Amino acid sequence: MQAIGVTRSGDEPELLDVERPEPAPGEALVRTLRVGVDGTDHEVIAGSHGGYPEGEDYMILGHEAVGVVEDGNGSGLEAGQVVVPTVRRKPDGETNEYFRRGEPDMAPEGEYVERGIVGDHGFMAEYFTSPADNLVPIPPHLAEYGMLVEPVSIAEKANDHAFATREPFQWRPDAACVLGNGSLGLLTLWMLEQRFDRTYCVGRRDRPDPTIDIIDELGATYVDSRETAVDEIPDAHEAVDYVFEATGYAPHAVQTVHALAPNGVGALLGIPGPWEFEIDGGRLHQEIVLHNKCLIGTVNSHVEHFEDAVETLDSMPDWLLDALVTTVATPEEATPAFEDDDDQIKGVVQFDTL
Amino acid sequence: MQAIGVTRSGDEPELLDVERPEPAPGEALVRTLRVGVDGTDHEVIAGSHGGYPEGEDYMILGHEAVGVVEDGNGSGLEAGQVVVPTVRRKPDGETNEYFRRGEPDMAPEGEYVERGIVGDHGFMAEYFTSPADNLVPIPPHLAEYGMLVEPVSIAEKANDHAFATREPFQWRPDAACVLGNGSLGLLTLWMLEQRFDRTYCVGRRDRPDPTIDIIDELGATYVDSRETAVDEIPDAHEAVDYVFEATGYAPHAVQTVHALAPNGVGALLGIPGPWEFEIDGGRLHQEIVLHNKCLIGTVNSHVEHFEDAVETLDSMPDWLLDALVTTVATPEEATPAFEDDDDQIKGVVQFDTL
Repeated sequence: MQAIGVTRSGDEPELLDVERPEPAPGEALVRTLRVGVDGTDHEVIAGSHGGYPEGEDYMILGHEAVGVVEDGNGSGLEAGQVVVPTVRRKPDGETNEYFRRGEPDMAPEGEYVERGIVGDHGFMAEYFTSPADNLVPIPPHLAEYGMLVEPVSIAEKANDHAFATREPFQWRPDAACVLGNGSLGLLTLWMLEQRFDRTYCVGRRDRPDPTIDIIDELGATYVDSRETAVDEIPDAHEAVDYVFEATGYAPHAVQTVHALAPNGVGALLGIPGPWEFEIDGGRLHQEIVLHNKCLIGTVNSHVEHFEDAVETLDSMPDWLLDALVTTVATPEEATPAFEDDDDQIKGVVQFDTL
Repeated sequence: MQAIGVTRSGDEPELLDVERPEPAPGEALVRTLRVGVDGTDHEVIAGSHGGYPEGEDYMILGHEAVGVVEDGNGSGLEAGQVVVPTVRRKPDGETNEYFRRGEPDMAPEGEYVERGIVGDHGFMAEYFTSPADNLVPIPPHLAEYGMLVEPVSIAEKANDHAFATREPFQWRPDAACVLGNGSLGLLTLWMLEQRFDRTYCVGRRDRPDPTIDIIDELGATYVDSRETAVDEIPDAHEAVDYVFEATGYAPHAVQTVHALAPNGVGALLGIPGPWEFEIDGGRLHQEIVLHNKCLIGTVNSHVEHFEDAVETLDSMPDWLLDALVTTVATPEEATPAFEDDDDQIKGVVQFDTL
C-alpha cells in the first residue's frame, strides 16, 4: 500500500510502498481518509523530535488522522464506522500503570511510544491497524474534518488541566490570550471565544495574512509580538486571566506569568530546546506568589479528551474549518501538504473519501 | 494598653502605650493571649514589606494571634470564646468582590489591608477589635498554640490549591519536599508526613540544630542545600511529587520544576525581591510541558483554611508544638521573641493566659 514516511537516510517525506498491516487480535483494520500535518511532523522530519520504530529504517508519518473501519476483526468496532485514532501506545510488549488507568498522556518519557512521532508508525498510509480502545468513533458527517479531533483534544486537555487549577476559588475570568497563530492556536482561540468575553491571539505576521483574517473574523484581537512582547500585553491591552501558549518559544513561559492578571493561569504546550537567557527570577517568583498565579504544562491527550474534542469540532462553524484546511493533497503529490509558509494553516493528505 | 509596634522613626519593635480600641458595631473586643513572630514581621520591622496605617506614625505588629472574646458586643460571639483572627481586611471604607465572596486571600494588591503587615494595626497588644466574621473560634484546649493556626492556614491553602491542580488525573504521589526549615516549613512537613510516604526538608544548617532534630523526629530526610542544590534532589535522593517552597529564595522557583517527578506540582509561597540571573529557559519550559508539571503560587488564606488549620493543629503531637515554640516572652521584655538566630523557631509574645 501507499504510505508517506521518513527514512533514516532521507530528510524529506517520501512516498513509500509498504505492506498493508494485518490486525492482531483486539485490533481493527482502518482505511485512512485524511491525515493532517502539524509542527511536530516537521520536527520529526527534521530529526529533532521522536525516533524510528525499533529495527525499522523508516517511519510512517502522521498522528492526526481520521479513517473508516475496514475490518472490525472482532474488536467490537464495525466495518463502516468512522474513527479517529489516539496517539500514544504501550511500549512494545509491556504496559504500565498509566495505560491501565486510561491516562497514557500522563506517562513519562520511556513509558510510551507515539504513533508517527516516537518509536511507532503513524497513520499516513492507506491503511493502519489499532487496538479498538485507541479508536474513538465520530459521526460520519464529521469525517471530512476528523483529522482535527487530535489537535482539538490537545487543547481540551490543556484547558481541563488549567481550569482545574482555579477550582479552589471563585474564578471569574474575562480575557484569554493564545500565543501562536498556527492551527492549534486558532482552534483553541475559537474554543476560548465560547468561554471568555475578550480574546487575544499573538503572532508575528504582517497583514494581509490568512491567520489574522481568522483572528479578526472570530472577534479576537491580533497582537503582533514584534511590536508588543507578551509581557507587555497588560500595558498595551489588558492583563489576561488565561494564557494558552502554543509557540514553543522559550521566553514565553516567563512572559506568560507577567501577561496574567491576578489569579490567572498559563498553560504551556510548546516544546523548545535548551536555551539559556537572563530573567528577573525574583520578580517572577514574587509575581506568582503575591497574585496566586499558576503555570501548568500539558502534553498529549487521552480518550476522554478525544471524545470532548468530537463535540467541540461538531460545534465549530463551517467557515472556520474551511479556512483552517488550506491544502488537501494526494499521497502521490503530498509535498504541498508539508509546505510550511504563511499561507499554510493545516495541510492534509487525503487517501480516500467516505 | 500595652502594645508592641514599629514607629516611622524607629527600626526595632517598641513597647508602646496606646489607647484600648473600642469595638464598632459588628465587631468584638478580644483580649489577646499570645502572638507569634514570623519572617514577615521581620520584613515589616526592616521596612521591606507592608506599610503603616494611613495617618498613623506607628503600626502595631503581629498577625499570628489567639485571644479570648472580652466583649461580644452583639456580634454573635460570646465573652470567653477563644478565637483566632484572620489577617486581611477590607480597605478602609470600601469592600470589593473578593471580600463579598469570602475570599480576601485572592484579592490583588491595593484591594485589601493586612493587620500588622500592610495598612492596619496588628494584634500584638493587650486587646484588639475585629469584625466577628474575621474571628475563627477554636477549642479552649488549643489556646496555648492558637497563634499557630494562622501559619497552618497558609499551608492549608497552598496544599488545597496545589493538590487541586492534580485533580484531573489519578495522581499517586509518594514523596514531598519542603524547602525551608522555619516554623512554616516544619508545620507543613508534619502535614505532608500524614499524606506522603517519604518527605524531605531542605535547610542550610549544620547539626546539631533544633530544626534538624525535628526533621529527624518526624522521620523526614534533611537535605543541606549547601551540599545538594534543590535541582539535584532527584539525583541525590529521588524526584519528588510535591515541593512546598517556603524560603523566598528566588532560584528555588526554577529549581523546584527540576526537583519534581513527572506530573508533580510545586507550590511557591516565598516573596523574594527583584533578582536577575540566568536560567536554561528552554529546558525549564520543556520540562514543564513534557512532564505535565505545575507551578502554583499562593498567598494568605481565608476563613475555611483557618477552620481546616484548627483541625490540623488539634491533630499535631504535643512534642512538636513544644519543640516549635522556642521562646515565650512578655510584652515588657519582648526582644527574645524577635531574636532570629538558629535556636529560634517560633518566638511568641504572651499577653495573658486563659
